[in-house]
Amino acid sequence: MPTFVQVLEFIGTFAFAISGIRLASAKQFDWFGAYVVGLSTAIGGGTIRDLLLGVTPFWMTDPVYPICSGLALVLVILLGRFLIHLHSTFFIFDSIGLSLFTVAGVGKTLVLGYPFWVAIIMGSITGAAGGVIRDVFINEIPLIFRKEIYAIACVIGGLVYWLCDFLTLGLVITQLVSGISVFVVRLLAVKYKICLPVLKGDESV
Amino acid sequence: MPTFVQVLEFIGTFAFAISGIRLASAKQFDWFGAYVVGLSTAIGGGTIRDLLLGVTPFWMTDPVYPICSGLALVLVILLGRFLIHLHSTFFIFDSIGLSLFTVAGVGKTLVLGYPFWVAIIMGSITGAAGGVIRDVFINEIPLIFRKEIYAIACVIGGLVYWLCDFLTLGLVITQLVSGISVFVVRLLAVKYKICLPVLKGDESV
Amino acid sequence: MPTFVQVLEFIGTFAFAISGIRLASAKQFDWFGAYVVGLSTAIGGGTIRDLLLGVTPFWMTDPVYPICSGLALVLVILLGRFLIHLHSTFFIFDSIGLSLFTVAGVGKTLVLGYPFWVAIIMGSITGAAGGVIRDVFINEIPLIFRKEIYAIACVIGGLVYWLCDFLTLGLVITQLVSGISVFVVRLLAVKYKICLPVLKGDESV
Repeated sequence: MPTFVQVLEFIGTFAFAISGIRLASAKQFDWFGAYVVGLSTAIGGGTIRDLLLGVTPFWMTDPVYPICSGLALVLVILLGRFLIHLHSTFFIFDSIGLSLFTVAGVGKTLVLGYPFWVAIIMGSITGAAGGVIRDVFINEIPLIFRKEIYAIACVIGGLVYWLCDFLTLGLVITQLVSGISVFVVRLLAVKYKICLPVLKGDESV
Repeated sequence: MPTFVQVLEFIGTFAFAISGIRLASAKQFDWFGAYVVGLSTAIGGGTIRDLLLGVTPFWMTDPVYPICSGLALVLVILLGRFLIHLHSTFFIFDSIGLSLFTVAGVGKTLVLGYPFWVAIIMGSITGAAGGVIRDVFINEIPLIFRKEIYAIACVIGGLVYWLCDFLTLGLVITQLVSGISVFVVRLLAVKYKICLPVLKGDESV
Repeated sequence: MPTFVQVLEFIGTFAFAISGIRLASAKQFDWFGAYVVGLSTAIGGGTIRDLLLGVTPFWMTDPVYPICSGLALVLVILLGRFLIHLHSTFFIFDSIGLSLFTVAGVGKTLVLGYPFWVAIIMGSITGAAGGVIRDVFINEIPLIFRKEIYAIACVIGGLVYWLCDFLTLGLVITQLVSGISVFVVRLLAVKYKICLPVLKGDESV
């Protein structure tokens, strides 16, 4: 029986893969290309984290991740345009994924003995770097660099993790509060269209 | 004396480097840029594989790879447009490279004790990821995601490797049959213009 | 008290981060995106080097690098367009960074027991790969592949390092002469507009 966290992780992986596959489909990728983009979106952040931490990438010990991305591809092929109507559902799934990936990244880094500032960076990489790889593959400027409160939600979640840990709230509560804070920041940012300031253009560069 | 496999590997590296250098030349890269793109195309896939597997990248123990890419650059500079007439020759060389790199990637991963599904992914990365890096460097959407049966040939070669291993055919025959299957799939796909279906565009994304 | 080399390294990191942040600002990145591009420009080369060498990325043991990039962001936000007038200053800083990063990369690789040809490649990656990551993030063809004598200065610096080592000049002199050679090559190339030949376009590819 999978645990509750494993079920959530599966949902998050699925949602990340869907986001990659849908953007690939908008660029006329073939099935294989869409699958690779979906898989890279789902596992790319955690892979970069694990390479930096010097451990075996997490997905190489469990075939659930490539299988999950394959199911996401089948779903997009079968449902196609109908998926648009599920936009809000996927947004929720995607935000759950972001929260879980961030908490998992922070926790794994701390277990390996790194200081908190490294853990916060690793949590943000786990949550957000997959989307950067996706956007490089489809040859677009990474979305998270320009438009959305996304990685910042990871950073805030990491800081909340640090605060809870400082207050010795216990691992379960710390991870729960941290994950919820990522989720809430992301939701509020999208609902109220909160953006970071854009850096003034410097055309002469 | 180099072995037969080493000779084939040199040919494959050479062909991969040529493909990178030619695409770089179409984008007005200077000699150095073209060299880097050629070298990255040739060794990029194996490097990503080795980073994921946690071993020293293969090219760091043998200067033949940077030298081989240098020779490829000299050839393109000297022959220039005349190379177009050798298009079919390079296609054969490139397909030989793809076959060898795939088999080498699968074999190396199995030796390190990983399961077959990881080995098939690593074989495909070894064969196809160099071309993805090349296309990112020249700022194009990776070709293998959109147009060609390329990485799929690697996946099929990996599955054939698995089948032969399951039938206990012995290492030499397993690797030979696997490599030939990559080569044949690639040739048939190009000859009969076999493509994967394109994922239906979802412009509203 | 920081040593003289640490002060120079801080200046180099700062200059690299500024170059990333300014190019990001020209593409309308938000503050977070600009920060990530700046940080990646500053630490990207050394990170790739350390992953290839199989050691913990250098910046994960010292928070000075993310802090330094943050200061660079604040400076660009505060000074904005006025920075254009400091163009020559930043060019000098950037060249100092390039020299230091190259020498650090060569030295670190040799200490780990790799041969000189690997060390020269690693020195060039340390100096130049951050700029490649920057240009991939802002979705441009990497500048160093097309227009400038940049990575070639690193290669020459590596060769000078090798020559000095061959002449047993001692570590301090070797590193000093090598670093100065990178700096001088870069300055002369820009002053006299020295470029590498462009590879002839092959439009039929």
